[in-house]
Parts: sequence; C-alpha cells; structure tokens
Amino acid sequence: MEAAVRVIAQHGVRGLRVEQLAAEAGVSTALIYYHFKDRGGVLRAALEHVNQRAQDYTDQALSTTEEPRAQLENLLLLELRDETEVAMNSIAWGELRASAVFDPDLRDPLTATTRAWNDDVETLLARAGATAPALAAEHLTALVEGLSERWHTGSITLDRARAVLTHAIARELGD
Amino acid sequence: MEAAVRVIAQHGVRGLRVEQLAAEAGVSTALIYYHFKDRGGVLRAALEHVNQRAQDYTDQALSTTEEPRAQLENLLLLELRDETEVAMNSIAWGELRASAVFDPDLRDPLTATTRAWNDDVETLLARAGATAPALAAEHLTALVEGLSERWHTGSITLDRARAVLTHAIARELGD
Repeated sequence: MEAAVRVIAQHGVRGLRVEQLAAEAGVSTALIYYHFKDRGGVLRAALEHVNQRAQDYTDQALSTTEEPRAQLENLLLLELRDETEVAMNSIAWGELRASAVFDPDLRDPLTATTRAWNDDVETLLARAGATAPALAAEHLTALVEGLSERWHTGSITLDRARAVLTHAIARELGD
Repeated sequence: MEAAVRVIAQHGVRGLRVEQLAAEAGVSTALIYYHFKDRGGVLRAALEHVNQRAQDYTDQALSTTEEPRAQLENLLLLELRDETEVAMNSIAWGELRASAVFDPDLRDPLTATTRAWNDDVETLLARAGATAPALAAEHLTALVEGLSERWHTGSITLDRARAVLTHAIARELGD
C-alpha cells in the first residue's frame, strides 16, 4: 500500500499500472491480483491506506492535553506540512478525489472518509465554541482540500496556505 | 475549444486524445496540430477558454447595480450552479488543476488565472468591508475549488455546497 501511494503521488491514479506497482513493491503482479482482485481494488485499498494515515494524524492531534482550539488547529494544519510523507499522502488524496470525478467506484469510499473527517472536525469545533459546527467543519475540511491542490500546483506557497487556513479557523471561532 | 472542454469534462485531461478531440470538433487532426502545435498547446488553450468563461461570469456579477456584498455572493456562487455549461466548466477547471500536479507546463497559466480570480474577489471584499481582503479572497476562492471537487464526486450536494460557501462569506464579512 505504501508503494501504491508512492506511485499515485508520483504519476497519478491514471499512471498507476499493476506492473509498475509490483516493481515498486518488489512483489509479483500475480500476488497483487490475488490480494486486490483488480486495479479498482488497489485504488480502494490505497484510499483506505491514505485515510488511515490521516486518521493517525487525527489521533496524534487529539491525544494532546491542549485546549480544543489548539487541537483543532493542529489537526487541520497537520495536512499542510513540508514533509515527504505528508506531501505524498496529500497528493495521493487529491488525485483520488480528482479521479473519482471520472470513476464512480471511488465515490462511496471517498464520501465515507470525507464524512468521518467532517465528524472529527465538527466535534472539536463544538468543543471550541463554534456557533455552527457542522457547517464550519465542512467549510474547513473543503478548504484544506482546496488549499492542498493549490500548494501541489505551485499556485500558493505552503506558508501562505497555512496562514489562510489559520485565518479561516479564527473566523469560525469568532476572532 | 468548446469541444476540448467537453472532452476534458467527460473523460479527463488524461483521456484527451487529439484524434478524439478532432472527431468531437468535426475537424481534422492536422488542423488541430496546425493551430495548437501539440497536446500541451491544446490543454493551455482549453485552460484559457475555461478561464474566459469564468471571466464572463465575473463580468456578469460585477455589471449589476447591487451592493458589493451581493455582487460578491453572486460572483462566487455562480461557480456552483446546476447548469450543464457551469458544471462542465467547473469539472474541466478541477481536472486541469489536478493534472497540473503531474504536468508542470500547466502550472504557470493556472497560477496566473488563480491570481486574477483572487484579485477580483479581493476588490469586492474590500468594497464590502472585509477586514483582511487578501487573505479572505484566497480563502474563499480555494474553498470554491474544494467544494466543487466534492460536488463533482458526490461527497456533498450542490445545495449544501452553496450553503457552506454562503456561510464562509458571512464569516468573512463579520456576521
């Protein structure tokens, strides 16, 4: 799965060939077909893996003893960091999102993952005193996706993306 | 160019073949190569066309005699509408954005277009009394991109996306 995320982050979903993935993972194509059935199975498993990594960031942000607002900032800003693993995860997520426009099979798992993310953020927003936590959660997570794609295409610097996100969080919390 | 936007919106940038585009446009492939040199030239021209259509929405929103705040809402919400041309334009824009992650040639025109959009929105935000119009403009336009991708992948309904955007605009204008 790490090999799949790497291949997707470097070449895109539509650049993902099972042969290339097998080479990257150091296994046979037969083993990949045995485990995942087909290319669609690989993509859904890769989405699950990306999601699990993002969930790890969430757990990390929530495990601190900080105030809800600081936890919320950590949770959202963790997605915008200059670290190879974070950037690869973020590129793979954006690419799976973009591919789902043309590949209906990816939509259900993507929607379920998006909903779980919204729920986590909504809980923290409610604790931090946001007046409309459900709307605010959907607002901030969609913004993270929009800013991430701009970051990965050079339309915004990472520092500026983080500043915009911090600004939007402050707007939701009444500053 | 309309044929190119249609093909991109239906099959993605990576599904765009010059042969298919020629068939869709009812011209020869030779004519396409003559005008655009190569596939990259077609993509850059398609981006320009998508941008021109978006600019038309902007002009439409700004030509009214409404208050700056109403103009701002119109301008941003015009991108989230249940109309075939708007949806195709939005899908093509998102797909060009996503492709630019893997295709550096698309980045400069995309960044220039994003900057022009931010500038228009910043001007309206300043007129409507926003306290940090530059940050707010980058916030709201990145949010439109994030919400559009969720809309096109079924992770949010169009009505909900519009409600989230309206909410975020209100947050920027101090409601």
